[in-house]
Amino acid sequence: MKILESTINIDVRFSETDAMGVVWHGNYLKYFEDGRERFGIKYGVEYLDIYKEGYFTPIVKSEINHKSTINYGEKILVKVILEKHYAAKIIFRYEVLNLTTNKIAAIGSTTQVFMNVQDRTLELIKPEFYENWEKNQNWKEA
Amino acid sequence: MKILESTINIDVRFSETDAMGVVWHGNYLKYFEDGRERFGIKYGVEYLDIYKEGYFTPIVKSEINHKSTINYGEKILVKVILEKHYAAKIIFRYEVLNLTTNKIAAIGSTTQVFMNVQDRTLELIKPEFYENWEKNQNWKEA
Amino acid sequence: MKILESTINIDVRFSETDAMGVVWHGNYLKYFEDGRERFGIKYGVEYLDIYKEGYFTPIVKSEINHKSTINYGEKILVKVILEKHYAAKIIFRYEVLNLTTNKIAAIGSTTQVFMNVQDRTLELIKPEFYENWEKNQNWKEA
Amino acid sequence: MKILESTINIDVRFSETDAMGVVWHGNYLKYFEDGRERFGIKYGVEYLDIYKEGYFTPIVKSEINHKSTINYGEKILVKVILEKHYAAKIIFRYEVLNLTTNKIAAIGSTTQVFMNVQDRTLELIKPEFYENWEKNQNWKEA
Repeated sequence: MKILESTINIDVRFSETDAMGVVWHGNYLKYFEDGRERFGIKYGVEYLDIYKEGYFTPIVKSEINHKSTINYGEKILVKVILEKHYAAKIIFRYEVLNLTTNKIAAIGSTTQVFMNVQDRTLELIKPEFYENWEKNQNWKEA
Repeated sequence: MKILESTINIDVRFSETDAMGVVWHGNYLKYFEDGRERFGIKYGVEYLDIYKEGYFTPIVKSEINHKSTINYGEKILVKVILEKHYAAKIIFRYEVLNLTTNKIAAIGSTTQVFMNVQDRTLELIKPEFYENWEKNQNWKEA
Repeated sequence: MKILESTINIDVRFSETDAMGVVWHGNYLKYFEDGRERFGIKYGVEYLDIYKEGYFTPIVKSEINHKSTINYGEKILVKVILEKHYAAKIIFRYEVLNLTTNKIAAIGSTTQVFMNVQDRTLELIKPEFYENWEKNQNWKEA
Repeated sequence: MKILESTINIDVRFSETDAMGVVWHGNYLKYFEDGRERFGIKYGVEYLDIYKEGYFTPIVKSEINHKSTINYGEKILVKVILEKHYAAKIIFRYEVLNLTTNKIAAIGSTTQVFMNVQDRTLELIKPEFYENWEKNQNWKEA
């Protein structure tokens, strides 16, 4: 069995730095999103796949803990791990590694829910397509 | 008769600065947008008003000329002037004034077209509602 | 005695919405920053004031809990409350109110630390200027 | 002899779309920046290389012409071409190709100047290091 995780290398944009000379803290949520999208491609659960099944998966909670800074010109890697649980939620954990300094830049998490595209109501149980997707993964607790 | 223009005061966000310590050049397009929205409120042609008439007005061209920098903590004012012309276009000119240094930070312009919301096709003549709006302004050449 | 809090009205930018038609979740950190800056102006502890004292106050943690969406054209109000505590940290709590729907859009918090501008080291006790600022507020627990 | 050009593939971020469901026009300047950085890596003239020589190269002019839209999920490619000329300026032309629709999404250009890091004054002639870099390219008119 495996942990469901993926990694992505990201080049920091100059526009993402701020006047302290480091990446502005809010931009980490863009890196988390890059990580989620790579995860979606790797495991066949991209936003557009989910949308075709009739669902949005809006973020309802996000958290970032900063451990060290990222300067312009430094290379980073974002690791994304899907948490295993029973609620109708998608919970990812993130690790942002600064490859240049070899330090953890940040850790964090996001929680998404399933929202019906038709009437924009919340799904209280996991949609069937997602249950099936989970079953098809040979997945152990992260 | 009058020139159709409006002004808006903007507080520069810390997140809008870059590692050179000044506002990142691309963020000026956000200030232009703030200016356009204020213009829309002042003259009754907001995006949502236009949308209710059945049109989007996407930007098809934008230009920025930078004259001096804006530092974090400096106050700016954006002046927006609507150009008078006959094509089915909305052309705005902009002046970004740094109120702290009393220097022009940038000038620029944007061109918008009318796109039908239904089929996303381009309108080749000015929509009637917009012709009427123009007639109701006591408007001289800017 | 009083709670240290401030509020700011914000106009949502079109560029802050996403393809779901609502404000992209990460942009709430910009609204939090707008709220913090207004707080700084109200109470005389702006970033630049703190910088003159020899300190940066980088964000080391942030959290957002989304309760409802914000659409383009809706008006919002951000309320910022400073938490009272003894560590060398600045902890703000936030409430983003959608004035158009009269619903809470999000709540959240950020934690900042004091970093010496000279050598970029962390301060383990509150800097004197900040202790003095706190004493000058007639402040009760929020 | 050759044209100095480079290309980069970019995945559009969800956060870069707007409520019209397409990439917000201002974000193209980020794609241009991605293109410039790739060019810098390819030809050994990255921002940080230039900085070590004692110069910033701020953008003083930018222009974008939009030809078609980019939707979330579509792949794009940015092509950057350096213009050959005699002034102390760096002028790039850009082409943003939507690989999914096979249409040109936008063309544009940016102009950068050389600014001395020490005193932030403008250089009126090309810095020597840059002259040398140009000579070392076997470069024909683009």
